[in-house]
Amino acid sequence: MRFRELWDEIAPVGRDAGSGGYLRYALTAPELRLREWFRAQADLRGMPVSEDGNGNLFARWGDPPGDARDGDAGRVGAAAGTGAVLTGSHFDSVPHGGAYDGPLGVVSAFLAVDELRATGADPVRPVVVAAFVEEEGARFGVPCLGSRLLTGEIDPDRAAGLRDAAGVGFAEALGARPAGADPALADRFAAFVELHVEQGRALVDAGAPVGVASAIWPHGRWRFELRGEGNHAGTTRMADRRDPMLTYAFTVLAANKEARLRGAHATVGRVAVEPNATNAVPSRVTCWLDARAAAPETLRELVEAVHAKVAERARRDGTELTVTPESATPLVAFDAGLTGRLAELLAAPVLPTGAGHDAGVLAARLPTAMLFVRNPTGVSHSPAESATDDDCAAGVVALARVLEELACR
Amino acid sequence: MRFRELWDEIAPVGRDAGSGGYLRYALTAPELRLREWFRAQADLRGMPVSEDGNGNLFARWGDPPGDARDGDAGRVGAAAGTGAVLTGSHFDSVPHGGAYDGPLGVVSAFLAVDELRATGADPVRPVVVAAFVEEEGARFGVPCLGSRLLTGEIDPDRAAGLRDAAGVGFAEALGARPAGADPALADRFAAFVELHVEQGRALVDAGAPVGVASAIWPHGRWRFELRGEGNHAGTTRMADRRDPMLTYAFTVLAANKEARLRGAHATVGRVAVEPNATNAVPSRVTCWLDARAAAPETLRELVEAVHAKVAERARRDGTELTVTPESATPLVAFDAGLTGRLAELLAAPVLPTGAGHDAGVLAARLPTAMLFVRNPTGVSHSPAESATDDDCAAGVVALARVLEELACR
Repeated sequence: MRFRELWDEIAPVGRDAGSGGYLRYALTAPELRLREWFRAQADLRGMPVSEDGNGNLFARWGDPPGDARDGDAGRVGAAAGTGAVLTGSHFDSVPHGGAYDGPLGVVSAFLAVDELRATGADPVRPVVVAAFVEEEGARFGVPCLGSRLLTGEIDPDRAAGLRDAAGVGFAEALGARPAGADPALADRFAAFVELHVEQGRALVDAGAPVGVASAIWPHGRWRFELRGEGNHAGTTRMADRRDPMLTYAFTVLAANKEARLRGAHATVGRVAVEPNATNAVPSRVTCWLDARAAAPETLRELVEAVHAKVAERARRDGTELTVTPESATPLVAFDAGLTGRLAELLAAPVLPTGAGHDAGVLAARLPTAMLFVRNPTGVSHSPAESATDDDCAAGVVALARVLEELACR
Repeated sequence: MRFRELWDEIAPVGRDAGSGGYLRYALTAPELRLREWFRAQADLRGMPVSEDGNGNLFARWGDPPGDARDGDAGRVGAAAGTGAVLTGSHFDSVPHGGAYDGPLGVVSAFLAVDELRATGADPVRPVVVAAFVEEEGARFGVPCLGSRLLTGEIDPDRAAGLRDAAGVGFAEALGARPAGADPALADRFAAFVELHVEQGRALVDAGAPVGVASAIWPHGRWRFELRGEGNHAGTTRMADRRDPMLTYAFTVLAANKEARLRGAHATVGRVAVEPNATNAVPSRVTCWLDARAAAPETLRELVEAVHAKVAERARRDGTELTVTPESATPLVAFDAGLTGRLAELLAAPVLPTGAGHDAGVLAARLPTAMLFVRNPTGVSHSPAESATDDDCAAGVVALARVLEELACR
């Protein structure tokens, strides 16, 4: 197992010396270096690389499906299907994110191909390793942008116009208007299996190095824009203020309380303040509510409750509130047959997750499953995110068994 | 009166087209253009310009004090005193600040010199127009940096090492290590009178275009650093979080409440979040408390109450709190004799203020007074800050009468 060797090749790329975390924003220099590394790894293995015109990379082992199709082409386990088995993940990170979220799935995919080849396996379907672009949404604001484009879940013109903090558009960063949906997606791929570091402690509690995902909680992002009156911090009487920072503070605490009441998750982790000066009452505070729950109705109630309470508080603060939904991802129940088959094959526990993934987007179009690798701290989106080399190796072995099951039988 | 003409010369400099506010940070391009404008205005009037090695500019009308001194040299109203009468203000702004805060005092000073000359006045003391550097502290974090250096209230080495958000040091921006205190300050200047736009509504209530300041409330800035554990917003159970944004939100509301209870002012207008990503529980939130009160003991109690309550909340949130005082300005009672004399001369109301000014710093070394010009909205540190041309003209006339009283008798 060459896990550590391969892992060390990419470990320095985009690492911030101060935080120890990663700044691997989509289509910026560090992520472009990782994409070059992807091409080099594919070359080493004789795997031809293609792009889909949306920024997603694919490296193929095995002959592509022929033009001739039969009715079973897209079904896993069908006798003569030729649709490929897709695996992989993404390279991009949140600001100062961890090393494993994304890259572990890509590195493990190449190593699983090596494992399979070492056993002399002969795939009847191609195995395709993917690196999806802008999974985190940290640069252009829409998570899973690459997989959403590929599946047609986002309009290419809307995606083209998304801009990063410096005003650079996605089309500009990509070098072209994104191509959008592949209408033949379900024919080209028979299944997608994404391996990912776990982002909680369920596998620690279960004492298992690898698990299989059952579902992704429905989740979304809502932008709360709070407008007040900029003023001098020293001279403006408290009673004369229309301070949106007060409404913001209330928003943070209300989101926390309403989530706890419902066993859901709500986070306000991003805020922008104008003018953001020590001696000025702000004129505007913009923040983003990230909310997730096991059931769609719980999520809806949670966001409605936060919205109503903040609107009431804004009236008292003399501020104005606008709430804009920025993204919404419905409940994703992964393919029950595939998930059960993999859990049995690997004797692995089955667990839900609150995190969105490209697998959640592709699940709408393909039989899809996820494997999780144990995270000793449960911490993620942080430099403290980790996984042991032994568990990562166990993840590769599990993924190789899954690919063998899906592509070689 | 050439007020509008002169005002329009500087109105476009550093104006942000989006907000309509000003980005005139000390020693950046817009402020450097205003300093050039200062030199040009002084040249037009035949007023020699000097710098003090700290970034403060001075333009003199009238012969400098001779080397011969008598014991009365520094006393205003003394028969043969030669110390100059200093007036002026600053050019720099808070982010997206108003047009009047600072520049009105410099423009009015030049126009007051014109008024005096037009009447044939013959000063027995020089009149010196000043433009102090970095009054707002918006670039290097210490307000009234130029006047603090000139009076010796801040060590030049400490000032030299102050850095802006991009890491540029004050000494680097200035082009040299700051010179620090002028030991002859009290000999060189007999008095300082700063004209400033009012930053509240007291003159509106009083129906007066011009007022005289009685005192500046004691005030200061405290940095609250809140450290938690960065984590994934989707997958981390609420109970497992150590979220510093919650402690931050509590800080904002506690500061507001404790200030209201005491008739004081407290503001949290500036915050920095790491990593500041929608789908990440922050690892660190840093914010700045701006607090002011009529009496020093009220201010101390206010800050202690906020600190104690936030410390308690941090324990509940599992976060860590460090509070660092960044600046503290004691109560400034302006020279009572001078203030009373000017209020009588101008038949103007006398009012306190919650805002710091270079006049507050110089008051420790020189007989100092301030004139305020009415602000119809009371709004300041905002693009909405304003004053009518008529009131600005009234301010110039008042300042000219004050300079005549102090320099020509």
